[in-house]
Amino acid sequence: MNIVKVDMTEGVVGKAPFPRPGRLDHMLGGRAVIDRYLTGHVSPRVHPLSSRSPFIVAPGFLAGSSAPSANRLSVGGKSPLTGGIKEANVGGTAGSKLGRLAIQALVVEGKSSQWQLLKLDQKGINLDPADFVMGLDNYEACERIRERYGKKIGVLIIGPAGERLSANSTVAATDPEGRPSRHAARGGVGAIMGAKRLKGIVIDDTGTTLRRAVDEKAFRAAVKATIETMRSGGPYGEILRSSGTPWFVDLDNARGSLQTHNYRLGSFDKVNDINASKFIELNKVRGGTMGHACSPGCVIHCSNIFHDAGGRYVTSSLEYETLTFLGANLGIGDLDAIARMDRRCDGIGIDTIETGAAIGILNDVGLFDFGDAARAEELIEEIARGTLMGRILAGGTELVAKVFGIDRVPTVKGQAIAAHSGRSMKGWGVTYATSPQGADHTAGPVGAGDLLNPKGQVELSRNSQIINTALDATGFCHFTFMYRYPQVIMPMINAFCGTDLTIEDFLELGKEMLRQERAFNLGAGIGPGADGMPEFTKTEPLPPTNAVFDVPDEEIQGFFNF
Amino acid sequence: MNIVKVDMTEGVVGKAPFPRPGRLDHMLGGRAVIDRYLTGHVSPRVHPLSSRSPFIVAPGFLAGSSAPSANRLSVGGKSPLTGGIKEANVGGTAGSKLGRLAIQALVVEGKSSQWQLLKLDQKGINLDPADFVMGLDNYEACERIRERYGKKIGVLIIGPAGERLSANSTVAATDPEGRPSRHAARGGVGAIMGAKRLKGIVIDDTGTTLRRAVDEKAFRAAVKATIETMRSGGPYGEILRSSGTPWFVDLDNARGSLQTHNYRLGSFDKVNDINASKFIELNKVRGGTMGHACSPGCVIHCSNIFHDAGGRYVTSSLEYETLTFLGANLGIGDLDAIARMDRRCDGIGIDTIETGAAIGILNDVGLFDFGDAARAEELIEEIARGTLMGRILAGGTELVAKVFGIDRVPTVKGQAIAAHSGRSMKGWGVTYATSPQGADHTAGPVGAGDLLNPKGQVELSRNSQIINTALDATGFCHFTFMYRYPQVIMPMINAFCGTDLTIEDFLELGKEMLRQERAFNLGAGIGPGADGMPEFTKTEPLPPTNAVFDVPDEEIQGFFNF
Repeated sequence: MNIVKVDMTEGVVGKAPFPRPGRLDHMLGGRAVIDRYLTGHVSPRVHPLSSRSPFIVAPGFLAGSSAPSANRLSVGGKSPLTGGIKEANVGGTAGSKLGRLAIQALVVEGKSSQWQLLKLDQKGINLDPADFVMGLDNYEACERIRERYGKKIGVLIIGPAGERLSANSTVAATDPEGRPSRHAARGGVGAIMGAKRLKGIVIDDTGTTLRRAVDEKAFRAAVKATIETMRSGGPYGEILRSSGTPWFVDLDNARGSLQTHNYRLGSFDKVNDINASKFIELNKVRGGTMGHACSPGCVIHCSNIFHDAGGRYVTSSLEYETLTFLGANLGIGDLDAIARMDRRCDGIGIDTIETGAAIGILNDVGLFDFGDAARAEELIEEIARGTLMGRILAGGTELVAKVFGIDRVPTVKGQAIAAHSGRSMKGWGVTYATSPQGADHTAGPVGAGDLLNPKGQVELSRNSQIINTALDATGFCHFTFMYRYPQVIMPMINAFCGTDLTIEDFLELGKEMLRQERAFNLGAGIGPGADGMPEFTKTEPLPPTNAVFDVPDEEIQGFFNF
Repeated sequence: MNIVKVDMTEGVVGKAPFPRPGRLDHMLGGRAVIDRYLTGHVSPRVHPLSSRSPFIVAPGFLAGSSAPSANRLSVGGKSPLTGGIKEANVGGTAGSKLGRLAIQALVVEGKSSQWQLLKLDQKGINLDPADFVMGLDNYEACERIRERYGKKIGVLIIGPAGERLSANSTVAATDPEGRPSRHAARGGVGAIMGAKRLKGIVIDDTGTTLRRAVDEKAFRAAVKATIETMRSGGPYGEILRSSGTPWFVDLDNARGSLQTHNYRLGSFDKVNDINASKFIELNKVRGGTMGHACSPGCVIHCSNIFHDAGGRYVTSSLEYETLTFLGANLGIGDLDAIARMDRRCDGIGIDTIETGAAIGILNDVGLFDFGDAARAEELIEEIARGTLMGRILAGGTELVAKVFGIDRVPTVKGQAIAAHSGRSMKGWGVTYATSPQGADHTAGPVGAGDLLNPKGQVELSRNSQIINTALDATGFCHFTFMYRYPQVIMPMINAFCGTDLTIEDFLELGKEMLRQERAFNLGAGIGPGADGMPEFTKTEPLPPTNAVFDVPDEEIQGFFNF
């Protein structure tokens, strides 16, 4: 495996073997690469958009193999949104293709004088002018790119928001159909890429084969066992295939943890207009899809495709977080409007969570009324056009708050709190409070036990974060639920790498990554005091549970005692 | 002495004796009150604009006495600009009047449903409706207030920027002529006040007398000795009276430490158009003033008044920091334009340093050309009108950078670096890097020794910060240069308070205050890693010295070892 380095200032590309000197380094992939590179090679005080701030792309270490649902890709660097370390995780085809091209990491530094596309294939690595796609909506840009480079490519691309270096800009990844529907969405990774004047990355794995394991026979057996565990691992596999993440809408609504009306409620009176049942009902008539696979080798199939009333493709995939933030959090009970907004966010290259949170707080200053879908769509068009209002909104929730003098700001470390309420699900609250990534929707789910009891939540969140962080090195999708059964994947990892790593090694990897991320943040000036939920969550009860976030600060401050 | 507490939510005011239980507490005034109150009574994670975030006004502990130049006032709370602790220091008449009314501290909490004025006099403390001055330029508002409350009042007031809760908004203080020309300018203290819906504070000390010392005879002798030391303390007293702070323009230009062209140069080709000589030359013809006193009991008289070509008052006081940031840093060599902008900033209630820095960085994205005074004035009018561009600019330099994707950001802890370059004056650089107040123009001057040698600057800055921080408790103006001769004021302090405090006690006060400020910041999430100059100052040489900021990070990190 190789590390590809690109110096955009000089237009020079290089490839070198990827060293893995330590025992745990066999598992050095994905988020672990970002953590290692940033802590080892980058001043944490660098400006996120400076030429010295690297843009990093790294597939999980199992990428390109036949490991199931293990082709997730990590995209990261220093976040323009949070000022701290950032890994945003994405599906699509790029992870698999990079793995098959034997590229374990792509590190882009410098700043080009012209916008470029980076082309990677078996023949080599090249920079091409990006003029023909500048300013375009991601959907249109990807069509142009596929016209030029063929249909077999995977594309990573930034939209107009990333070109403008907005702090809430994504890196889109094309799905198996070639659509830029999957997004490394959080923390403004699109702006890190844009600051290099890198518009897109085109990956063509033509001629490659699946990566082979060191012990291929044992690996095949382990893959089979893993798939079986996934499929028999409780009801979730079935639910995700039939309903996808929209299934969470009803679940969270019922337990009062669905962020609604600018985080003021935990359930939504129009929940039946945006839940999985409604989605499936419409799909039956319109021909959309549940059980779509977002990336090669996926055995979960939780992605979906949404059609309009005319049966035409609108967007993929309408996830729980999007339904919450462009729906419930804005009081919008209209799947068509949500789908249009999701599609537009994907086209502009902005995170739907941060966008919905940023629009939501405008309600506090009379600039947005709950339920006003037309206004929400209009505001998203402002982002598309890059007006001043659009630039403000694309700067993220905290920036919007600062511009308009809003004092109730639903963020941690500069990033909007995700869709499972941390008041009604206190373990999630601890995850938001403590993750070095800021309030994050994948950092460490805590969905079991007494969700409203503050006791023990720090430990539950810690265990979850450690395992999920390690998972982000493998390339495994979190919906494999392997964070519940990490022991299942160890034989597969060992067969693939030719190692005798234990579950303790795997957990140690997660701990080491979290420690590195925290160290980077400390160096960047984000101290332990930044670990905590916003004050308003501690004093403002959230109906219908009327819970506040009451996990004691002392316990939160003890999170990193591991 | 008393502490006045105001609950704006309930409209309740109360007065209680101000406890001073400890030995050092005799010196509990000004900035020390803010430090003590915030660390003792406020969650550092509170939002700066929330009803739980107090707005604090505290004169120095000598205020209202006959101590010379000791009527400075501290205004503070949790900064909406930096997210950390903030004390902004201001002259004018309010400090003296509060002292004479035996008010050592004013703590305002809650949030009124209507905008209010707080009236303080010997008869009591009242809240009055502020409707008649809402939205007005500070100059006009102060005229209205004086029409209603009489000419003997001192006024503290926020302008339109403070009403809008902009992160770069000031609290104006009226000078002896009743003009809102003095500003507690830095860190957005105007927004903290505005968040309470407190438009102004009207202070009438009619019927009061100078505060008397415990040992009046010894105090008078000590005051006399202090004044003599001030007047004989080197050439500075004479220079400040004849030239005021504009004198620094030539000095810094000569040593290459005058922030010019968006911090890209250390000297300015049009320096002769904005320096003290030019100012004095115009004054001779137009009738402006040098040697103006900004507050009662001042023996320095470094303030000035600037007239236009028609001999009409434009503004007071055109200080070095303003000449630099609305002049050299924007490439504007036109005293009239600078004076107009200063007046407008005073009227809107925004800091000239932060404003000039924020406009300056727009040059990086083609939105401002150096020397274009008309454009700069137009941008300031946008702030006055509260347009989106105006709100962005009034959000401060870092916010502007985030909106427009600018990666060269001349701030520390969210606050624009002040006028003495930290590259050509490395001790100043250490002060910017380490002050809990963010990059600040009064936190700790270092102007002696080998300014370009990185060695020893941490110690020089530490000593300066300790003494200047303690001075901010006394009410002494920094231009008394008592930071060079703190021993001179101890007999005065002891006679006034009836104590036997030593110079070591005085220094311990400064240390304690700095430790408290740092502790508050740590609690607010601003970790030690935030102590440092921006990366670009370490790599980009500043002509004409071509110095970079090269004080080692390890030394910077050792700053708080005291």
